[in-house]
This record gives sequence, C-alpha cells and structure tokens, in this order.
Amino acid sequence: MSTQNSEFTAVVHDAAEIVTIEEEGSLGIYEDAAIAVVDGEVARIGATGPVTREYPPEDAQFAVDATGKAVIPGFIDPHTHALFAGDRSDEFEAKLQGKTYQEILAEGGGILRTVRAVREASDEELLSNLFSHLDTMLAHGTTTVEIKSGYGLDTETELQMLDVIARADDQHAVDVIPTFMGAHAVPEGRDADDYVDEVVREQIPAVAEQGIAQFCDVFCEEGVFSVEQSRRVLEAGEKHGMTPKVHAEELAHIGGTQLAAELGATSADHLLYATREDIDAVVESGVVPVLLPGTAFGLGAEFADARAFLDAGAPIAIATDFNPNCYSQSMGFAASLSCVEMGMTPKESLVAGTKHAGMALDMADGAGTLQPGTPGDIAVLDAPSYVHVPYNFGVNAVETVLKNGQVVHRA
Amino acid sequence: MSTQNSEFTAVVHDAAEIVTIEEEGSLGIYEDAAIAVVDGEVARIGATGPVTREYPPEDAQFAVDATGKAVIPGFIDPHTHALFAGDRSDEFEAKLQGKTYQEILAEGGGILRTVRAVREASDEELLSNLFSHLDTMLAHGTTTVEIKSGYGLDTETELQMLDVIARADDQHAVDVIPTFMGAHAVPEGRDADDYVDEVVREQIPAVAEQGIAQFCDVFCEEGVFSVEQSRRVLEAGEKHGMTPKVHAEELAHIGGTQLAAELGATSADHLLYATREDIDAVVESGVVPVLLPGTAFGLGAEFADARAFLDAGAPIAIATDFNPNCYSQSMGFAASLSCVEMGMTPKESLVAGTKHAGMALDMADGAGTLQPGTPGDIAVLDAPSYVHVPYNFGVNAVETVLKNGQVVHRA
Ligand SMILES: [Zn+2]
Ligand SMILES: [Zn+2]
Repeated sequence: MSTQNSEFTAVVHDAAEIVTIEEEGSLGIYEDAAIAVVDGEVARIGATGPVTREYPPEDAQFAVDATGKAVIPGFIDPHTHALFAGDRSDEFEAKLQGKTYQEILAEGGGILRTVRAVREASDEELLSNLFSHLDTMLAHGTTTVEIKSGYGLDTETELQMLDVIARADDQHAVDVIPTFMGAHAVPEGRDADDYVDEVVREQIPAVAEQGIAQFCDVFCEEGVFSVEQSRRVLEAGEKHGMTPKVHAEELAHIGGTQLAAELGATSADHLLYATREDIDAVVESGVVPVLLPGTAFGLGAEFADARAFLDAGAPIAIATDFNPNCYSQSMGFAASLSCVEMGMTPKESLVAGTKHAGMALDMADGAGTLQPGTPGDIAVLDAPSYVHVPYNFGVNAVETVLKNGQVVHRA
Repeated sequence: MSTQNSEFTAVVHDAAEIVTIEEEGSLGIYEDAAIAVVDGEVARIGATGPVTREYPPEDAQFAVDATGKAVIPGFIDPHTHALFAGDRSDEFEAKLQGKTYQEILAEGGGILRTVRAVREASDEELLSNLFSHLDTMLAHGTTTVEIKSGYGLDTETELQMLDVIARADDQHAVDVIPTFMGAHAVPEGRDADDYVDEVVREQIPAVAEQGIAQFCDVFCEEGVFSVEQSRRVLEAGEKHGMTPKVHAEELAHIGGTQLAAELGATSADHLLYATREDIDAVVESGVVPVLLPGTAFGLGAEFADARAFLDAGAPIAIATDFNPNCYSQSMGFAASLSCVEMGMTPKESLVAGTKHAGMALDMADGAGTLQPGTPGDIAVLDAPSYVHVPYNFGVNAVETVLKNGQVVHRA
C-alpha cells in the first residue's frame, strides 16, 4: 500500500489487456496487466507482476481475476430518457406494419402517451422502473448515465421526475447526471409559444430552486420548438445555472447545431442532418457532438455522418438515447451500430462511449479514461479484447463492473 | 396430476402472457396464464387459476413465478457455425477500416485462419469453446441449435468436429443438431473439383460410418462450389443418409436455391440474391428459406427480401449464423434485425425463430410451438410482452429458460 491511511479498494489482475484512453483519443493497451484502485481512484496500471506485488489481491477489498479477459473504462451514456412509465412496444409493431409516427401520435400514442403514463405514475413506480433500467445499464458496463426529465411537461411532474432521478443517483451504483427538459414536446392542446412561456417563467425557476438539474435541454426540431423558442429556453436555463444542451437536426435541418455553438452548449445531439457548416461550428466552439445510432436504427433513418465529424477532428460521443421509442440500454449495441453503420473503428467507438461521453457531460478531466487519479469505474469483459464490445452483435460482452473500485455487478 | 406414474416437471404461473404458435403461423396469446409440463412435455396451458389448481406449484419439480412477464417457446437456431477456435475480432476492425474480405483472405485471414486454428485445437479446447457459446445461446433463450462442421476440411478434423458437437449435445442442456459441411470452403492450395472428390469419396463415407451428422450442407457460391459441385456433394450425402441443406445466393446468384428445390433440401439459407423464381421454387418444393440477417448486417450488405418470401407464403425461418464473421449468439438480435431491417412483424419474427426454425431442421411436428404434447422448451422474458424480444435492441429480454420442463438457466 502506498499511503498509510488510504483504503486499498480493488485490484483487477491477470487481464489479457487493460485499455486506457490517452491524449488525442488514442488507446493505451497493457497486456497481461493489473489495475489497482485506492480510495476509489485508479492508483496504478501495469504488468500484473509488479502491480500485484505492490497491491496484493489478498489485501484488497475487491480482487477480480481477469485471466483471459479485457478490462475497459466503464461506459458513460451521455443521452437518455431512461425515466418513464408505461409500455409502448405495441407502437414498435404498428410502425413495422407501416404506421407513421404522425398516425401514432394522432391516435394518442407516441411521446404524449408516455407523458400521460408518467403523470399517472407514483414516485415509487417511477423509481422502481428507473432502478430496473439502471440495473440493465450497469450489467452492460455503464457506470455513469445522463437522464433527462421531459415526460411531465408541467412544473409539478417535471420536478417530480428530477426528484426521482436524484433519488436514483443516491441509491443506485450508477452515477446519474440530471438534465431538465421541460421543452421535450408541446403538451396536448397547447400552443408552442405559450408553452415556452411556461417553461421559461415557471418551470425553469422552479427547477433552479429545487436545485437538481445540471443541464437544460430542448428538442429543437421542425414542428416542435423553433430555433428562437429553443434559444429562449436555453438562455433562461443558463440564467438559472443550467448548462445548455440541444437536440439538433434529428428529423430535419433547422439550425439547432448553430444555436448550440452560439450558446456554447456542452453538446449537440442527434445531428443526422448536420451540414458541413454545422460540423465546422461544433469543432470551433468546442461543442461535443453526441451521436445516437440506435435512434436512427429504430427509425430506419440514415445514420449521422460520423466520419465527417471525425475527419474534422470533433470529439464524437455516442449514447443509447434509451427511451420508449429507442428501447436499448446497451452502450455495446450503440458501439456495434457505430462501427457497422457509421464506419467508426472499434477504437473510436470506445473513446466515444467513455472519454468523449464524459466531455459531453462536463465531467471532471480524465473521466472515462482509467488514467491514474480518476475514478475506478471499470468494466471487465467476458472476452479477450475490447473489440468484442462492438464485434459481439446484440450480446453483452461485459461480465463484471466496478464503480469507484467496488464490485457492483457480476454476471 | 393427470396421470399417476408421470412426473410433474414444472409449472410457470401468473405470466402476463403465454405465447404459443398455432396453425398457419398465427399466435395464441393467453393472458394471466400458466403452463404445466409433465414428463418434460407441455400438458396444459390456460388461465393461472384452473391450471395451478390441477398443477399446484408446490408439487412441481420446478415452479416459476412469471408475474408481469411474457412466456414464449424456446428459440430454435437453425443455422450456426458455433464450433470454432481462435479469435478473429481483429478482422472486424480491419474490415471497418476498408479492408476487403479478399485482402483479409490473401493475408491468411478469414475462414482458412479458423481452419488452421481448429486443426491445431485439442478436443478439450473445442468442447470448452462450444460450451461457452452454448451457455450464451441458452441465456438468450435458445433451446435447440444446429451446428455445422466445416472448419476441418479434412476427414480427420471434420470427424473430430462432429464428435465434439455430439459430446456437446450429450452434455449441455441445449439440444444440438449436427450438420456435416466438409464443403464449406476449398482448402488452401487445393483445386475445388479435386477437393469435392475427397468430400464425396472419403469424407462423406467416413462421416456416415461415424453416424453423427443428420444434414449435409454445402457453400454453393461464386468462387467456392458451383451448382454442379454442390449437387455432387449433396447427392453423395443423401446416399449416405444425410439430408441436404444449401448455402444459397449469399454473395451472388448462381442457382443454389433451384438446386435445393430440385433435391428436396430441408432448407436453403441466406438467399440475399434470391429471385422471384427462387421464391416460387422454395414454396412449391417445401424447402424452408432460412434468413440470416446478422450476416447481412455484418457485411453491410442488402438484407434478404423477407417480405417477398412471406407474401409468397413461404415459412421463413431466421437464424443467427453465429460464426467468427458474424459474431452473435442471440436469436433476439436476429429478431430485431428481422423487424427493423427486413420489415417483418414481431409476430413473424417469433414464428420464424421457433416453429419455422424447427421445420428447417426436420424436427418433430409441433417443435417450437408450445402445443400440448410438445417438449417443455420455454423462455420466460423479463418483459410483459413477446414484442420486447425484437423491441429491446441489443439487450437480452430472456430471464429464465426451461428445457423439457427443467429450469436450465436463470439470469
Ligand atoms: Zn433525446
Ligand atoms: Zn453458414
């Protein structure tokens, strides 16, 4: 033990490879390696022999034999709507039979159906649903997740959602980062401008007073909230201490990415219809582009042009977008789609789901990298190489998960 | 208990729904239901009250409380190459960086690399690899799987593979159906005609004498085995008691489907380039079309035209095609791709992965249907509806699996 009063939390040893994220998004690959965690933070990575001599497995609170297995940073999922109620699997079926989203909405389905279900749900039901999804995420290697409100669309239910999100963060091993998204849809029977007034004048101040949300997000989209309406929401959020994020150019190009750049948003998300100018704007302004390939997969849409962003030097992040319309809690599946459908390499998909995802959430420097001094958030794979995460289509490659060095999941 | 000397194997009770496959591929959906298994076979399905009065959970060898969960037939995976050695995840990476399969082959990669690894592997290594994959399949709800030889490409190693497949069938809960596929590729440095001679004169008689293979399959493909060469292999196989199957029209159209129809093959598989005439031929001849959407996904290819087959009344089956080039053990993922990429409905994907898959393996009538009198091969989902199998992208919806009424997997 290096320090007398520190706690030797964990050592993962004899791994086939331990993968860290280095400068410029390159990987560090340590073969036949061990990683030691002290006081919840990475203390040392290197060959198993020297590391386990300094940090003997028998002295650790948690010792994981990773013989034949790859070890990677825990995933950071930077865009989800994981808190909801009700079941919309029937709409998946209806869409496959040719029903359009507009028809589903007209029949009372779609997002407003989830809003009705959430408004009717108790705190306990919401928390129980969320716990179950967080369990699934954790089992798939996710150690930090962003979750948005936005199925309340009224002050009371938005506050309730943020409160449930905060309770999940307290009580569940997965770290949860809360985003207020009252401007997720226009409620039934309301005018968009009128509703934006409510978000700006009533919801945002109440959310700020409750003090739970770190980010403020808006669905800047044709037929939902215009660039001007989105700007009003995000500026009001910022005045109340919430950092902007933007759902931009998902179904059409209307200018959400330029708005994100102009406001210095932390991220612009979706970007299926982003232009050359949008790509330049995110690179110049330091906005992190968050791509959501599961959503494009579910929509049968064209995927975002990941290679154009990468070629421009943008730090692409990927996320699940987990929600009733894109029902996947798995960052590994997002990685498979990133590779197969967006032409990213396994390496790029790993960096996008760890370090860059942390940047998309304004996390501390080094989040998602496994560099010494960063949290011991670690996924041990049931596979000899990190490439198996995207390579093993539709199958969870993760076996054991550590959060701050504590084993919190074993398959 | 209905019969005095029979064994009350299991009851799964209080399910949100139990789904059976009925005539013409329609579904029977029993709500708030229970299913009882006696002597390993389905004895009764119906409302939980009456079924559990006749079959009380406390008297069963296995009782599963399925409150809030859906229950479906165990999947039958009718096309895999699940027995192999070595790791080819690096080729997945190389392909994403633009390397062609031909370039990978030229560098000693591809299928012939797996052949080298299998020839070098011990029985124990092969069996251990296969067990691990069967465990993963079982965890994803597969209760019967077809596995092909074809990474030996010489008599000794082909026999060894079939022997390992038979041992896995004996020792593992998943039922394994063995297929001889000596004509999977032309070995390095060999002429195709010359190798077909070896398959016909030496391998097939030896396989027949060993007595393990039920089917004989061939890779009928441009640059691999011609229709004439494939016919020689399949006719020789049939003379020795092995039923024909054909890998047909995967990378180009050369006539494998017509050959399958002509020979009365049990199935024709892949069919990406099948024509209208091919579709008519499989329907008229009763050949089961087996579609492998994971392979098309991995190749970045066009998917088979599932709707054309369905519209023609063909009993489409789906399979994983699990192999180093399509690394997925999950029938649920095949179902997701079937729906999202091939326009099948969740119902059609379920029938394709159960009843029709059983037909593609000449299994007993009723296999994969959960009709009374058929094996108690059952998957209990961690979800309220069977639709969650394809709807939950990249995530295993299966929680508990029963084989012949015995609980053989719990998540
Ligand atoms: Zn979103
Ligand atoms: Zn095959």
